[in-house]
Amino acid sequence: MVENPSISQVQALFFDVFGTLMDWRTSVARESRLILEPLGYQLDWLAFADAWRNEYQPGMEEVRSGKIPFSKLDVLHRRNLERFLPRFNVTGLPEAVMRDLNLAWHRLDAWPDVPGALIRLKTRYRIAPCSNGNISLGVDLARRNKFSWDAIFGSEIAGDFKPKPRVYLAACEALDLAPEQCMMVAAHSRDLKSAAECGLRTGHIARPHEFGPNTGETGPIVPVDIAGSDLADLATKLGV
Amino acid sequence: MVENPSISQVQALFFDVFGTLMDWRTSVARESRLILEPLGYQLDWLAFADAWRNEYQPGMEEVRSGKIPFSKLDVLHRRNLERFLPRFNVTGLPEAVMRDLNLAWHRLDAWPDVPGALIRLKTRYRIAPCSNGNISLGVDLARRNKFSWDAIFGSEIAGDFKPKPRVYLAACEALDLAPEQCMMVAAHSRDLKSAAECGLRTGHIARPHEFGPNTGETGPIVPVDIAGSDLADLATKLGV
Repeated sequence: MVENPSISQVQALFFDVFGTLMDWRTSVARESRLILEPLGYQLDWLAFADAWRNEYQPGMEEVRSGKIPFSKLDVLHRRNLERFLPRFNVTGLPEAVMRDLNLAWHRLDAWPDVPGALIRLKTRYRIAPCSNGNISLGVDLARRNKFSWDAIFGSEIAGDFKPKPRVYLAACEALDLAPEQCMMVAAHSRDLKSAAECGLRTGHIARPHEFGPNTGETGPIVPVDIAGSDLADLATKLGV
Repeated sequence: MVENPSISQVQALFFDVFGTLMDWRTSVARESRLILEPLGYQLDWLAFADAWRNEYQPGMEEVRSGKIPFSKLDVLHRRNLERFLPRFNVTGLPEAVMRDLNLAWHRLDAWPDVPGALIRLKTRYRIAPCSNGNISLGVDLARRNKFSWDAIFGSEIAGDFKPKPRVYLAACEALDLAPEQCMMVAAHSRDLKSAAECGLRTGHIARPHEFGPNTGETGPIVPVDIAGSDLADLATKLGV
């Protein structure tokens, strides 16, 4: 039983993906190594993943600010890849390799608590990612990790990137729900702050090792409706 | 094994929903009766469902022609309901009843062959509805009938209704696939003709009783890549 009345009316849960559900860092490091090591590269693969991720917010900011039109995250990931590759002295990769490398982000593994928790949560709630990743990326992650989403929301249906309000509101509208009937679930307080400003309920989960040991949020640094130590704990706190 | 080379490159199957996957006629008749009979109405419930469906194409044509802006099918269903209700001498229903009645289209049952066939097809293909129904309707039908879609495409992500090309092409683009890597599956030759004109592969399935006994298409009346007696037969012919 959920006793908090602000939570009891929630009918849908929207999930941040990178970091919240997926361990992008060790996955991108692994996938990059699988592709580049046979070509003779010996790199610090975790640093490689971190360098790629460091271009993430600046790349999206060009869209959010209106400097460039909306593009799928795959397109931004490719631009970002080309920006940081020279710093690792990786040059002249064939186009097919560049394309395959860019799809490392489609081959992420979930944190271990996620698949089981999503099965539990789906018994009571509509569940959907609300990610800055494009739809095809969401589909590939779901197939790989055996997620059974009700729908795939996020930047591509909104035409903008989080934390812009449109992304959260487009997800609510697609399900014919008011914002207060939806909860955004994320490991990042900034995401939850923006969702709350749009009227959504918010659920925080700790991912203390997202960017490496003891680098992630161990708890929310903004007010939230509910907080869990991981997604399984959040499911338990939601009574499922 | 699929020996037809035009089919062997297919990676995604898009499905028409009303009639192809769902028995809308007996479902809408049942749901309407469940709501209206306790209010004292004794109607020909199948005729009631048929009358509602008869408003379907004219309602969408107003959007396709540009006469009115795009609306979710739920909105058109409601307008259509208000148009034909007086012919059944049903008047003055409270707003809550009207709203519930309109959601009859969210409570359709699939033809019996569909759930099992979709499970088989998902093992090899990305599967998604490409329907004129809105996303929330697709979500509700999937939850009710235990479909596990990879994504939900169709009119709402395209901003127009089939058979306009944009609806088919938006689904291909969302999966980063070329049209020839996608197959539209439908029980309606008109839908398949339009999909083929956009470059998609096409699969027909027979639904001979869609509008009542011996009213539906028993086979395609346009050239298609593959045809099945039902979705299970189509899955078998696709080798899954």
